[in-house]
Amino acid sequence: MKKYSEMTKEELKAARDELQKKCEEFKAMNLNLDMSRGKPCKEQLDLSMGLLSVLDDKSSLVCEDGMDCRNYGGLTGIKEARELLATFMENDVKNIIIYGNSSLNVMYTIIMQCFVFGVMGEKPWKDQDKIKFLCPVPGYDRHFAICEEFGIEMINVPMSETGPDMDMIEKLVSEDEKIKGIWCVPKYSNPDGYVYSDDTIKRFARLKPKASDFRIFWDNAYTVHYLYDEVEKHDHIIEILGECERAGNPDIVYKFASTSKISFPGSGLAVLAASDNNIKDIMKHLKYQTIGYDKVNQLRHVVFFKDLKGIKDHMKKHASIIRPKFELVLNTFEKEFSDVDAISWTKPRGGYFISFYGLEGTAKDIVKRCSDLGVKLTDAGSSFPYHKDPKDSNIRIAPTYPKIEDLEEALKVFTVCAKLSTIEKLLAS
Amino acid sequence: MKKYSEMTKEELKAARDELQKKCEEFKAMNLNLDMSRGKPCKEQLDLSMGLLSVLDDKSSLVCEDGMDCRNYGGLTGIKEARELLATFMENDVKNIIIYGNSSLNVMYTIIMQCFVFGVMGEKPWKDQDKIKFLCPVPGYDRHFAICEEFGIEMINVPMSETGPDMDMIEKLVSEDEKIKGIWCVPKYSNPDGYVYSDDTIKRFARLKPKASDFRIFWDNAYTVHYLYDEVEKHDHIIEILGECERAGNPDIVYKFASTSKISFPGSGLAVLAASDNNIKDIMKHLKYQTIGYDKVNQLRHVVFFKDLKGIKDHMKKHASIIRPKFELVLNTFEKEFSDVDAISWTKPRGGYFISFYGLEGTAKDIVKRCSDLGVKLTDAGSSFPYHKDPKDSNIRIAPTYPKIEDLEEALKVFTVCAKLSTIEKLLAS
Repeated sequence: MKKYSEMTKEELKAARDELQKKCEEFKAMNLNLDMSRGKPCKEQLDLSMGLLSVLDDKSSLVCEDGMDCRNYGGLTGIKEARELLATFMENDVKNIIIYGNSSLNVMYTIIMQCFVFGVMGEKPWKDQDKIKFLCPVPGYDRHFAICEEFGIEMINVPMSETGPDMDMIEKLVSEDEKIKGIWCVPKYSNPDGYVYSDDTIKRFARLKPKASDFRIFWDNAYTVHYLYDEVEKHDHIIEILGECERAGNPDIVYKFASTSKISFPGSGLAVLAASDNNIKDIMKHLKYQTIGYDKVNQLRHVVFFKDLKGIKDHMKKHASIIRPKFELVLNTFEKEFSDVDAISWTKPRGGYFISFYGLEGTAKDIVKRCSDLGVKLTDAGSSFPYHKDPKDSNIRIAPTYPKIEDLEEALKVFTVCAKLSTIEKLLAS
Repeated sequence: MKKYSEMTKEELKAARDELQKKCEEFKAMNLNLDMSRGKPCKEQLDLSMGLLSVLDDKSSLVCEDGMDCRNYGGLTGIKEARELLATFMENDVKNIIIYGNSSLNVMYTIIMQCFVFGVMGEKPWKDQDKIKFLCPVPGYDRHFAICEEFGIEMINVPMSETGPDMDMIEKLVSEDEKIKGIWCVPKYSNPDGYVYSDDTIKRFARLKPKASDFRIFWDNAYTVHYLYDEVEKHDHIIEILGECERAGNPDIVYKFASTSKISFPGSGLAVLAASDNNIKDIMKHLKYQTIGYDKVNQLRHVVFFKDLKGIKDHMKKHASIIRPKFELVLNTFEKEFSDVDAISWTKPRGGYFISFYGLEGTAKDIVKRCSDLGVKLTDAGSSFPYHKDPKDSNIRIAPTYPKIEDLEEALKVFTVCAKLSTIEKLLAS
């Protein structure tokens, strides 16, 4: 089959007319489909219904150490839950704090603390000249939104299959004292699904930032979110906090995770891990913020999952539900875009997203076309600071939430629109 | 019986010797008792065990409006819970935001927002000269701690049985633009158990602060926390937000409450109520902080309590458990301190505390003596900004948590120590 780049103008126009006919057909179908949301689907949520029954009115809510989960106290979490989440985080129990239901909220809170009170005795960020964050792109829109909220300038750093551009990062942080942090999703990155390589992580651990209050914001959101059951297909990354310790750089990183996409989003547990010094620094402020988080829910999770194996077994069930959806997207792209050499996409083995890369200057147009035909996508540019994709090329595909039949329909529309935008762009150039 | 003030030095010394003998006896008992904690006791927690069974693996977690409680979303809370808590707060649903598990955390967050981002478009507090808060005293230590955390200067305002000194408040807020807020616990105030009078609340609603970003932080922590079952014994206060609206001053107040001492501390629901303008302003920042709070727990509370009547019926059960403890304290004080005219105490009809007022300069000494005999009390000064009780007179008595037998023992020690400190002080003067 001829590639788009090899076609004559006339051939492109003929292809366009075909695609436009299909659009007319879609239009007549009055579709109402959504591929925008990085949410688990109903069947995934059903997997955790047992969580609601593991504690009942006959249960003992008293912890191993005698603490009554129902009462005040337990600022860093109950012993059992800290132990479970320590194995999950691959860190010592003493380096763990369990927060409420949202790791986003933990990240916001930590940024707020750095901003208002400063990092380990340093001048608060609010009292320093305009500060900056490095943002591997594309990335998670809500990370970038927190920076916007606090007026932190964002600098794009390109991503690759092995992680962000470390040459650029090493250079920038060593030269510019105003750079105070970087957002990382090291495993199955949002939205590319890339996994940081050992080399990338070792270089992160060995960063020598000019700013002593520089921190890596390590959002390991998809720690155990494999798409395949077989352990040999699982990606492994170096545990960053240990690596930082080995590099003599233990305080440079804050790690975040949650069970949001393991148990229930909104009703899970969020967790932070950091060095002894950072934990001490964080606790100085946490003690004013609350008397404690929901310990009953902590116990519920411990009884339901039991141990890390329990969590991983549970994740296999998630995988079996969402893997076919990812494969449907990848197979459809493979089939439909074989002749469209301007288009590429990522092939994640975990996480929640697939990144689509169109011909430069087409992403917004594709999203608009889909929307006009009743298929909602994440806004183009969403995965970039200030919602600005410099190439207008990336679209985040979120396959988990829709029913597979709906996803199939939506993908038909998407692929037609993507091709049409590509041709229009080629014809206009 | 002769009052202490009428006794000769010799009589006081004789009384002292008697009391010291009792102290020796207590010492020999190796007591380990605690009257320091404003926590519900086990029997109170048991009342809410049903909360753990109202949802199980067979339950529908889908709300009236179709929202799945288990998934992301619902930033301001699920419809059913907002309706329940709107009746609880006596406010419109549109003026309600349900947060996580801790109203303290909500208050901290609101102060943080005012500090970092400013109140409704005003200059952030952080960018204004040293700002101040008014603090009715004695008050809640954790309110004051938040001010300390943000470097907000605190000004004591004396409390009386009808609420704080409104003449002083009106004068100060109308003159000093740096005064940005006041902490209020309007019903069964912590630790006095006073209830703000209608006149006090009407004057609050009509404050004309010089600072346009002045806010009343109205922590209605003990809304339905009556000690007596009979409705005619319940105290009622004017609903402040409505009163502020009637006074043409709707934006002056933030209201806070939670179910912490209704269901489970740490696993309840926290709620904020405020004017349309304030809600809009708060939402501008809340949307960066989280995707949503624990909606499963919201539904759990709705199914368990059903409606405001359900909450009030539940509170009768709480009252029946803690009323005897309050009465034991009050009866013991009545009996033991009848001859000690320098000592007084409050007689709350709700809430969690009783305030003890000793002879000036004795509170620290009493707490120390009790501690030496194995009875832990809240630190003297805790209920004051900077932990400084200018009169060194107030001790917060928390009767709810200990078993009644332990409370009885602890009170024997307390009353002896209080008398002894008083006599020593009288002899030294």
